[in-house]
Amino acid sequence: MEIDFRSDNTAGAHPNVIDKLQGIYKYKNAPYGHDPFSQKLHKKLCDFFECDLDFFLTLTGTAANALALSTICPSYGLVYCQNKAHIDVDECGSPEFFTHGAKLLPVSQEKSEKIDIQRIAEHQQRHLQPHNCLPTAISLTQPTEKGVIYSIEELHAIKKTAAEFNLYIHMDGARLSNALVHLDCTPADITWKSGVDVMSMGMTKNGAICAEAIIFFNKKLTKNFDYIHKKAGQLPSKMSYFSAQWLAMFENNLWHNNAIHANKTAAQLAETFVNNSLCHIVSPVNTNCIIVNMPPKLAAHLTQHSILFYPWGKDNYRFMTSWQTKKSDIDTLSKVIQLY
Amino acid sequence: MEIDFRSDNTAGAHPNVIDKLQGIYKYKNAPYGHDPFSQKLHKKLCDFFECDLDFFLTLTGTAANALALSTICPSYGLVYCQNKAHIDVDECGSPEFFTHGAKLLPVSQEKSEKIDIQRIAEHQQRHLQPHNCLPTAISLTQPTEKGVIYSIEELHAIKKTAAEFNLYIHMDGARLSNALVHLDCTPADITWKSGVDVMSMGMTKNGAICAEAIIFFNKKLTKNFDYIHKKAGQLPSKMSYFSAQWLAMFENNLWHNNAIHANKTAAQLAETFVNNSLCHIVSPVNTNCIIVNMPPKLAAHLTQHSILFYPWGKDNYRFMTSWQTKKSDIDTLSKVIQLY
Amino acid sequence: MEIDFRSDNTAGAHPNVIDKLQGIYKYKNAPYGHDPFSQKLHKKLCDFFECDLDFFLTLTGTAANALALSTICPSYGLVYCQNKAHIDVDECGSPEFFTHGAKLLPVSQEKSEKIDIQRIAEHQQRHLQPHNCLPTAISLTQPTEKGVIYSIEELHAIKKTAAEFNLYIHMDGARLSNALVHLDCTPADITWKSGVDVMSMGMTKNGAICAEAIIFFNKKLTKNFDYIHKKAGQLPSKMSYFSAQWLAMFENNLWHNNAIHANKTAAQLAETFVNNSLCHIVSPVNTNCIIVNMPPKLAAHLTQHSILFYPWGKDNYRFMTSWQTKKSDIDTLSKVIQLY
Amino acid sequence: MEIDFRSDNTAGAHPNVIDKLQGIYKYKNAPYGHDPFSQKLHKKLCDFFECDLDFFLTLTGTAANALALSTICPSYGLVYCQNKAHIDVDECGSPEFFTHGAKLLPVSQEKSEKIDIQRIAEHQQRHLQPHNCLPTAISLTQPTEKGVIYSIEELHAIKKTAAEFNLYIHMDGARLSNALVHLDCTPADITWKSGVDVMSMGMTKNGAICAEAIIFFNKKLTKNFDYIHKKAGQLPSKMSYFSAQWLAMFENNLWHNNAIHANKTAAQLAETFVNNSLCHIVSPVNTNCIIVNMPPKLAAHLTQHSILFYPWGKDNYRFMTSWQTKKSDIDTLSKVIQLY
Repeated sequence: MEIDFRSDNTAGAHPNVIDKLQGIYKYKNAPYGHDPFSQKLHKKLCDFFECDLDFFLTLTGTAANALALSTICPSYGLVYCQNKAHIDVDECGSPEFFTHGAKLLPVSQEKSEKIDIQRIAEHQQRHLQPHNCLPTAISLTQPTEKGVIYSIEELHAIKKTAAEFNLYIHMDGARLSNALVHLDCTPADITWKSGVDVMSMGMTKNGAICAEAIIFFNKKLTKNFDYIHKKAGQLPSKMSYFSAQWLAMFENNLWHNNAIHANKTAAQLAETFVNNSLCHIVSPVNTNCIIVNMPPKLAAHLTQHSILFYPWGKDNYRFMTSWQTKKSDIDTLSKVIQLY
Repeated sequence: MEIDFRSDNTAGAHPNVIDKLQGIYKYKNAPYGHDPFSQKLHKKLCDFFECDLDFFLTLTGTAANALALSTICPSYGLVYCQNKAHIDVDECGSPEFFTHGAKLLPVSQEKSEKIDIQRIAEHQQRHLQPHNCLPTAISLTQPTEKGVIYSIEELHAIKKTAAEFNLYIHMDGARLSNALVHLDCTPADITWKSGVDVMSMGMTKNGAICAEAIIFFNKKLTKNFDYIHKKAGQLPSKMSYFSAQWLAMFENNLWHNNAIHANKTAAQLAETFVNNSLCHIVSPVNTNCIIVNMPPKLAAHLTQHSILFYPWGKDNYRFMTSWQTKKSDIDTLSKVIQLY
Repeated sequence: MEIDFRSDNTAGAHPNVIDKLQGIYKYKNAPYGHDPFSQKLHKKLCDFFECDLDFFLTLTGTAANALALSTICPSYGLVYCQNKAHIDVDECGSPEFFTHGAKLLPVSQEKSEKIDIQRIAEHQQRHLQPHNCLPTAISLTQPTEKGVIYSIEELHAIKKTAAEFNLYIHMDGARLSNALVHLDCTPADITWKSGVDVMSMGMTKNGAICAEAIIFFNKKLTKNFDYIHKKAGQLPSKMSYFSAQWLAMFENNLWHNNAIHANKTAAQLAETFVNNSLCHIVSPVNTNCIIVNMPPKLAAHLTQHSILFYPWGKDNYRFMTSWQTKKSDIDTLSKVIQLY
Repeated sequence: MEIDFRSDNTAGAHPNVIDKLQGIYKYKNAPYGHDPFSQKLHKKLCDFFECDLDFFLTLTGTAANALALSTICPSYGLVYCQNKAHIDVDECGSPEFFTHGAKLLPVSQEKSEKIDIQRIAEHQQRHLQPHNCLPTAISLTQPTEKGVIYSIEELHAIKKTAAEFNLYIHMDGARLSNALVHLDCTPADITWKSGVDVMSMGMTKNGAICAEAIIFFNKKLTKNFDYIHKKAGQLPSKMSYFSAQWLAMFENNLWHNNAIHANKTAAQLAETFVNNSLCHIVSPVNTNCIIVNMPPKLAAHLTQHSILFYPWGKDNYRFMTSWQTKKSDIDTLSKVIQLY
């Protein structure tokens, strides 16, 4: 039987989430978000982030990112982003589509995927004119595509840069739960207190079926956004079933337990690689993602033994854990490596 | 307690649908549609429609309509549609957005909401030139917004007109199940055999949580559509949970039983109105939708007795049934009317 | 030899305009509008309209209209317009393109092409919600496509309606000169003093090669519009040659003399039709445009005698004069009619 | 008095071009390109390029580039382009706008601005899927932004790569005349015979007011392009005045003489820099463009003596000649340098 470390999106939905959905049909619910589940979720999110916020559910993370960016970047705008950011290389140009032609400019340091504020400062020194797109925002992913965490200090430095150059901040929080667990801070600390205006937040990878949201900490950005949300095809009629998934994730701290589990199993998995002289972990294992350098023959050996994972650049491979990863999965991988 | 005749989208999801979802997590499924549920659904849809077809799930009916239209209508194109078609008046201009600026031209007869092929013929006699948008398609809704059915003869007449003027045909089949039950014909009869190139099909209103699809009978239209689907933010990672809903609807003919129930309860409800001299049913009750003309005071009386429904033009009101409508709902409404 | 009453856009450029261009090459001019001609034009336009305004030249009237509308109507917006407005039926959906999917809603009275404020008021009484596009603006053409003038009183009534419903006003002033000459009022009177926020203004039909502009009376609308102007492909490098055409039109009141000539010859032409019992002028001849109802056989007779004009609906025909129309053109047409 | 080496777009229009325009008004011309000037131009272009082609005039080079790309790159597409290509860094994202969200990927070698076919081959080895944009075209500028020429051999290598990976080729020929003069080849040699499907071609910088065109060598790309052209606001009513400028450029080989003059004066100017030990020319001077490295103090010295030019990266400066550059301009600059 296969052991799957491809991505946390190959995990299923947690049984509690489905149980929550089973009960809904007994009530008739007004469509399009005018239901008690959605209203309760609004309150829950305000509590969670300790602020008054607006939120809109979307049906994919791609839509959350692209629509969020469209509120802080006009068609002639430019967004500073991370090298290999999901918004730049994995969404088929969806941000360009929903902004009607804005540009993304990767500004990371050579090795890191993190935003390099020095490069933003340099770019701002150019004479800006209508022949070039107008920089209006910074987008960062927390944790990054490699699972690495921005510290609160790093976030505050970005906040300062954004303020200096009059830029909005967008955070891609598809795996925000894993970041929160690692930093052991409040949700407010790494979002609006760090200057984030709008965030794409996902619970899909952490145990829901489909739980993606745009969270507006800067409520000035949401004027008439309900129209854009509808026009973009992101307003489902039976919204209660989507809001309920979020509520299930918040109940009994399911989100927290799932993320702790994913991060912990990743740490265990990392140890397996650290203990093998042929393997080299290439970036800090802060969350549920491990990038390992290993000989292609070893990688092939793992594949032959039904271990699933993705290639991630030359001789690098990504292994990812989730709420569903079992101790036995780690043990099996450990044994298979030793067979080599 | 309230009795809800507002829309079939206020009904919940059928318990069987949720049960189907509960089992999925036990398997790890490749994301983005490369899972066994989605593959099984493809086979099922080909069988259902008795043809080789392509399908793409979307997350709203609006997205299904707008993206379907974008494959048959370029930015400079024009789509002939029904007066008050959902695509024209209820989707916040989503078709114009996803086509990048195409136009919709309503061409119904005065009273009916059905496509008037005579008006298409007249419009085609104009000298067409690049100052005007280029007509490329006809879009019709089966059943119409008022729940009225196009007969197979009517569909064939539209097919003939489309062929004459080199137009594609799009069908909005958000309530296709209700139409099929009424006509007692095969799904093929009123779709590709009637010249439909691409259809938006929904099972959401008929008992699913979120089951919308674009069905391409004309497979030439789908070249690279997988890229558009992704770019539009309509490709969920955990696709298996969406495909599984469709499978649940097909199991044990759930879709058929639900639609029969909805249509039947509408017929019973209609009788209640027919028997009241103050009420006048203004369009044929073919499916699960009734448009009733009644004195506003009577409407207010119903509202005061917790009967929910929508206003639908001057002194007209829409009542809609669903798979969840109970016999007792009809009885209650009947009694409340008699109290007036 | 042919006599051309098809449109004022078949006339050439006035010799003075070309003379003005011949001199420019002797100086090197900074590109993209940073030249003395463009600066002088700004001052001239502010004087002409007696206000502080922003202007952007465009290269077609279609671009002027579509880009102007894009500043007052978001993608989810709706613009109330005249029936058969140029923006709605003669620009291949350019407004929908540049607004990214907004809708135009014609709201004229049955017979007239003028905006019917009563229909706007009725539409506003609907419950507005994100399923429908959000009305944000009124667009009117002065004079209308049939050459009819809005009186200052009519404009003020529209201004009042716009204020009541929080709508911007756009004016298509492709033939503004002809309107000004007819009304004998100041340019300010029928523009910003009548509530116009943004106007598309043309001198092309009145004697230039290519002189189209977006005039912003409401300067709040122009923030970053220079970026949109560039992105839309409407910023020519040798802008001085476009600004100079406007300056030539203003020199020695060329614009005024040309428009007086065009309107006067239209009045003479109208008399010819009035004097013929087979002909019937169907809308007031306020400017340089005449819509005549006549037997198709008479129209064919004119065509056979090399008189050029356009059909304009059933048995109706449009005749248009320009700065180039000669007295002898009118006389010839008069004689040809008498031959019938 | 200032001596202007900023760009060839600060030069005026050649007197012959204006003379040509002065005569047009004597005839009434059908609008929108249905005039004898435009028809004659079509024939002239077919002769010039020795093939049957389609052409569309546009009003800026930006529009020509963006609309040309929109015919070979869908919204989900990707265009391989040069580093610092005009389409990527100087057009405010116009290609992204008119393609509705396509991506540009620079693929030059480190030092050169020329397309590196090796990098295209490497990118093609990635597993392509709908999460990434689909590469559909290569765009190159002949000469490059630095005025460097692709040899015919280099063009053929690109053609081969394009064929291998099923990519269209777009050429930005804003200064095609300067390239033709340098290579002393036929226009056919470096366009369709080198695999170019569609070209943006300009005569504006070479002596016209506004002469930009999209030339389709691959006529399959132009189906319904007349609609897109109109919708994009690029179809002027008095087209004859734009076509006539091209005819004037072709008469008596004006285009050729102007380009020879510009290239020749650039060579003379280059000699001045070569003879100065403080100056270093950083890329081959093939056409009318010189990139010079010099001490900022020397640059400031030139500026103080009313020599105009643009900074072009660290300690680099761009000097550009045109049809209007005078021998005395070169002599003056030479003297001013010696004063330092």
